[in-house]
Amino acid sequence: MLRSDGETVRLSLAELSDLLAGVFAASGVAPAQAAILGDNCARCERDGATSHGVFRIPGYRASLASGWIDGRATPVIERVAPAFLRVDAQNGFAQPALAAARPQLLEMVRACGVAVLAIRNSHHFSALWPDLEPFAADGLIALSTVAGLACVAPAAGARPVFGTNPIAFAAPVAGADPLVFDLSTSACSNGDLRIAAREGRPLPPGAGVDRAGQPTTDPDAVLDGGALLPFGGYKGAALSLMVEVLAAGLTGGQFSHEVDFSGHPGAETPCTGQLLILIDPSRGAVNAPAERIAGLLQVIRAAGVERLPGDHRYAQRRRSDRDGIALAHAQWAELTACQLPS
Amino acid sequence: MLRSDGETVRLSLAELSDLLAGVFAASGVAPAQAAILGDNCARCERDGATSHGVFRIPGYRASLASGWIDGRATPVIERVAPAFLRVDAQNGFAQPALAAARPQLLEMVRACGVAVLAIRNSHHFSALWPDLEPFAADGLIALSTVAGLACVAPAAGARPVFGTNPIAFAAPVAGADPLVFDLSTSACSNGDLRIAAREGRPLPPGAGVDRAGQPTTDPDAVLDGGALLPFGGYKGAALSLMVEVLAAGLTGGQFSHEVDFSGHPGAETPCTGQLLILIDPSRGAVNAPAERIAGLLQVIRAAGVERLPGDHRYAQRRRSDRDGIALAHAQWAELTACQLPS
Repeated sequence: MLRSDGETVRLSLAELSDLLAGVFAASGVAPAQAAILGDNCARCERDGATSHGVFRIPGYRASLASGWIDGRATPVIERVAPAFLRVDAQNGFAQPALAAARPQLLEMVRACGVAVLAIRNSHHFSALWPDLEPFAADGLIALSTVAGLACVAPAAGARPVFGTNPIAFAAPVAGADPLVFDLSTSACSNGDLRIAAREGRPLPPGAGVDRAGQPTTDPDAVLDGGALLPFGGYKGAALSLMVEVLAAGLTGGQFSHEVDFSGHPGAETPCTGQLLILIDPSRGAVNAPAERIAGLLQVIRAAGVERLPGDHRYAQRRRSDRDGIALAHAQWAELTACQLPS
Repeated sequence: MLRSDGETVRLSLAELSDLLAGVFAASGVAPAQAAILGDNCARCERDGATSHGVFRIPGYRASLASGWIDGRATPVIERVAPAFLRVDAQNGFAQPALAAARPQLLEMVRACGVAVLAIRNSHHFSALWPDLEPFAADGLIALSTVAGLACVAPAAGARPVFGTNPIAFAAPVAGADPLVFDLSTSACSNGDLRIAAREGRPLPPGAGVDRAGQPTTDPDAVLDGGALLPFGGYKGAALSLMVEVLAAGLTGGQFSHEVDFSGHPGAETPCTGQLLILIDPSRGAVNAPAERIAGLLQVIRAAGVERLPGDHRYAQRRRSDRDGIALAHAQWAELTACQLPS
């Protein structure tokens, strides 16, 4: 289904996934892991989550080239308790570690009603929602957090300590796509900050401070020694702190402020940790939970809410599935060239 | 240690707890449950969490008098999986249900690494942090949410669907008080809204809308057919939705918008559900988690943050422990009179 009108190339999910897997493999990632990362990145692009799509490929490649991350790491999985799985990603990517742990994790949550996956020494450079959506499609409730790079000041005037520290959540909805959200606890995500800088667009007010700690809407001033701020004031700061505790303190991964890749020029991926909590709602609810959640979403829409979490993403997914995923021809050509081992 | 200078009475925690237990007992609450609720309410007052302290007693009494809530309910506890405990509070208070489940829950989390408590048909009219702090003092990480009364519009212009839907979190800190926060996902809590209305103080901008859906800072306009708003825009709204799914969809309790006490004039307590997730950090971290969390908090303070979650509460606790918990003499006299069966 590869189609091109000269300026735009349109790819199916499988085509883009294969193309990106080739790029990862050419950058030193083991084939099975390259397939997982290619699929992950292609799904972001398909759903219009462009800040975690093809846009990220140069960062992945530079990080791999710098020797900061090991694309051939084999995650070490330990079942430390009936409902607790611990994974040392061995300085590799988080997504292959999750994929390796998934079968055991599903067994555990079905047996125990809840299960925890604690990944450490892992690099997560994508969105979190692709990690969670498949669990919700299987009828489970999933909650995940990941730490990052210290670029968020807990409050105006303070130095950066937190990463953009996303919280993602997914739940099954009867007769519809799962409810999935994935929000950074910073007022602006790192991806959106970089895109704003690239495009010369200002940040929303309250998103960041400059190197003197003063409020600014200039993305370059934030990137040049300034900091992002938490969303929603002290409440967002508390949630960001919770993410550090869960994704790093609990997993044994590095806190965001401990990540130091200064010895690896070009490196961009944070080596931290990720926590995933899975709950089987059939254990808790005396009445069908996915049906009740579907009813709740109807009530919210009827109350006058036009957009629920995931609506834009699912709408873009339908368009991409129908029309193909659009890439600029030059971008496609560049990716194709990257597939060759350098 | 009861002391009075005529205008102010100063009580120890045990004295205030006993006094309030007497008030609950006189309102029809079974003695063992009255002791739990009295202690809970006294701890809020002691820590300066006045919106959940003695201020709430009239609401408790009116709800009990209306027949809306059963102060003598016996919670029914079911161990539905090795790490999943389900409790039907039988239209009683949530805190006695949690207390009844606590020993089994602690066994489960020690054995499985994580445990979930799903309480339904329960009334939670207090803060959430008193539920969690003891778990963190025992070295566990705790996360809890509870649904409420539909008073929060998911977005300006929409009708209220969500409760103020708090999220509370607690984690152990080596050599210090636990890290505990408890934040409503609304821009303003119901308690603070009521106190602002009583004192004629305006709400912060963005906290609410009037009955026409227009922004207002007038607490009376919010209470008179208006609505509170989520904190932090669409991100806070997503978290509030998550609370509905976890505390009601997952537990089998009522969603906030389903709570209808119109047949019980005077009732104020929401009959919904509460979810509690406990995690044993010693299972996840390869290095001492409570020590690492203590180190992180030091880094945050050194970065220029003057106030961390819980600081105000612990400082007020020290003052109360030293000087006694201060009540106005008239308030103390009223509570004392309420102890007598009516």
